[in-house]
Amino acid sequence: MTLELLKDIGEQGLLERLQPFCPPGIVGDDGAVIPPPESGQSLVITTDVLVNGVHFSDRYGGVSQCTTSPEDAGWRAAAANLSDLAAMGASPLGITVGLSLTGDVPVSWVERLYQGMTQCLNQYNTPIVGGDICRSPVISIAITAFGQVYPHRAIRRTGAKVGHAIVVTGVHGASRAGLELLLKPDFGKHLSPEQRLSLIKAHQRPQPRLDVIALLELQVNRLLELQVNKLKVESSNFQSDNLQPDNLQPDNFQPSTLQPSTLQLSIAGMDSSDGLADAIVQICRASGVGAEIDSNRITLPQSLSKLVSPEQALDWALYGGEDFELVLCLPNEAAEELVAKLGEGAAVIGKITSGNQVWLKDKTGTYADQLLSLNKGFQHF
Amino acid sequence: MTLELLKDIGEQGLLERLQPFCPPGIVGDDGAVIPPPESGQSLVITTDVLVNGVHFSDRYGGVSQCTTSPEDAGWRAAAANLSDLAAMGASPLGITVGLSLTGDVPVSWVERLYQGMTQCLNQYNTPIVGGDICRSPVISIAITAFGQVYPHRAIRRTGAKVGHAIVVTGVHGASRAGLELLLKPDFGKHLSPEQRLSLIKAHQRPQPRLDVIALLELQVNRLLELQVNKLKVESSNFQSDNLQPDNLQPDNFQPSTLQPSTLQLSIAGMDSSDGLADAIVQICRASGVGAEIDSNRITLPQSLSKLVSPEQALDWALYGGEDFELVLCLPNEAAEELVAKLGEGAAVIGKITSGNQVWLKDKTGTYADQLLSLNKGFQHF
Repeated sequence: MTLELLKDIGEQGLLERLQPFCPPGIVGDDGAVIPPPESGQSLVITTDVLVNGVHFSDRYGGVSQCTTSPEDAGWRAAAANLSDLAAMGASPLGITVGLSLTGDVPVSWVERLYQGMTQCLNQYNTPIVGGDICRSPVISIAITAFGQVYPHRAIRRTGAKVGHAIVVTGVHGASRAGLELLLKPDFGKHLSPEQRLSLIKAHQRPQPRLDVIALLELQVNRLLELQVNKLKVESSNFQSDNLQPDNLQPDNFQPSTLQPSTLQLSIAGMDSSDGLADAIVQICRASGVGAEIDSNRITLPQSLSKLVSPEQALDWALYGGEDFELVLCLPNEAAEELVAKLGEGAAVIGKITSGNQVWLKDKTGTYADQLLSLNKGFQHF
Repeated sequence: MTLELLKDIGEQGLLERLQPFCPPGIVGDDGAVIPPPESGQSLVITTDVLVNGVHFSDRYGGVSQCTTSPEDAGWRAAAANLSDLAAMGASPLGITVGLSLTGDVPVSWVERLYQGMTQCLNQYNTPIVGGDICRSPVISIAITAFGQVYPHRAIRRTGAKVGHAIVVTGVHGASRAGLELLLKPDFGKHLSPEQRLSLIKAHQRPQPRLDVIALLELQVNRLLELQVNKLKVESSNFQSDNLQPDNLQPDNFQPSTLQPSTLQLSIAGMDSSDGLADAIVQICRASGVGAEIDSNRITLPQSLSKLVSPEQALDWALYGGEDFELVLCLPNEAAEELVAKLGEGAAVIGKITSGNQVWLKDKTGTYADQLLSLNKGFQHF
């Protein structure tokens, strides 16, 4: 049986094959017309380019040697962009896909790539609303995702405040361990099949933490409501200019026109796609603050201790990247509540300090103290 | 003097150099938070990938041999995406840029690319709101543009109706001629310097026809107002179900709640980026109609007759591509008015017919009659 290649069916042929992956009626014009964000919400846009051999590697058809099947490459590309939306506190509206393909790519490879993307996207009812296909000497996938957020609820890297707790929404190092297992079949032979699969899945099918955003929204609404009620009672005794309790930053506070959507709980953050260390340092740099991390509180996959030394495990957690968790800085009480709700893997790992140094310390003596910087993380070029 | 390369300054270094090209406060997070479309308008999204050696060719620094300077490559990439928005009847809100770059690209090449992009974008107050940079064996530029349009005003490929006039908003074949002049320095020696420059500019600095959309909006508003007034007078004599004059398609017509934004004038269309023939055939196919084009009415740059035979000139106009004009199908009266307003280069070139054949005919006998199909236009793979 001969494999059907892209050059056999051409651009129009491929477009027809990919149409079923997009909502009916949207594709087939120069652009897609879609509903705008809900009233009062801003548009959030993020874009990512993934290149064959750099971000994924393929052998056109999923031979067991390759670390990324087309389905996985598609899933990861979609997940990386949805994670960026989650990192902004936004919920997704749709994505566009710009594909650069060589002529000798099997049509089935492209279809399987789209299957992986839609498997990830369907979890969040996020449609592929458009795209472009072009010929190139190297395969790459450029995705632009767009979502919506109330402008005051956007999570930014700036805004981490001295005293804030630093939360991770899950374990780190799992994706890097999974990659190692894929690259070295002899590695980790004493892991149980479930442990093995769990680490590999962390690498191949990372989950964007949009669930955290939904949780946070409920929690923030409730917290703000409590504060608003308290402020309403107190407002007869104070000038509204003085109503600035520690955890709250009302925007043009007017008790008569209070809308949860116009209030914010100060949360800074980003995702840990480029590594946990990178995320912490980027947030601190953008916010003009320092941090003290307790390295013993960084949550690792349990099985990691069966694989590598504690130092190696911590190194993967800090610099491995692609765990796609969120790193959030918020007031203590809210942080503890969030961690309790998220359950296993989530943790308060440290606090924001004055100054600009990011210290990694361990009072138990398992790990050596170190000063984190941007240089050790993954850098293109 | 040694040329500063990308690998010398790294990813963070390049990001700092490119920051001045983006609005302050927007870049530096996982995503950009921007205002949504204006009330009542939908979001329009379009994406395009341009690959070095396919869509442009560079020699890292604008040596006279190359056909595309980095500024031109940037301009064309931005223009192609803005043209897609124009083709949808939309006005632009912003773009994102996903750059794949090799490590040996000079930093100045990237800066000049951004200069070209912003030169084009600034004409329409369109910001670059985000992007991604990654390493790749081949340079490519993936742009996603987003804009806004009243949903009933969106121009689609579907909706061309039998009897509609087919309008081109400008000349065709100029971009292809300009490319030929760049590739063959000995070609077209008897052109005046101005003619030469004009054709080359058509290739290097094409203009997205967003001006046509602005014109069309004014014209449509005025036409609809006239019709609405007429309908108001007549409405006492008719059931509202019968109010379907030929040129108007009121949507849930209610004289008491008439809003120009909820009415539409039936306009189908797309841009001619893949060639005039491709645009006409695509519109006819999507609308389930045929067309008869008078090949003698297709407007060509005057200087083309000094360059090549009439047959070659027509071939370039039909299949050369990248003229970035709009091809619009609309009622006769509105078409004539639009052409008069657009002036030189714009023309009614034919009409929509029943059936599904697209005939190119010429009563003057200059050109042979031919049946157009999708096969001759540019196809990737």
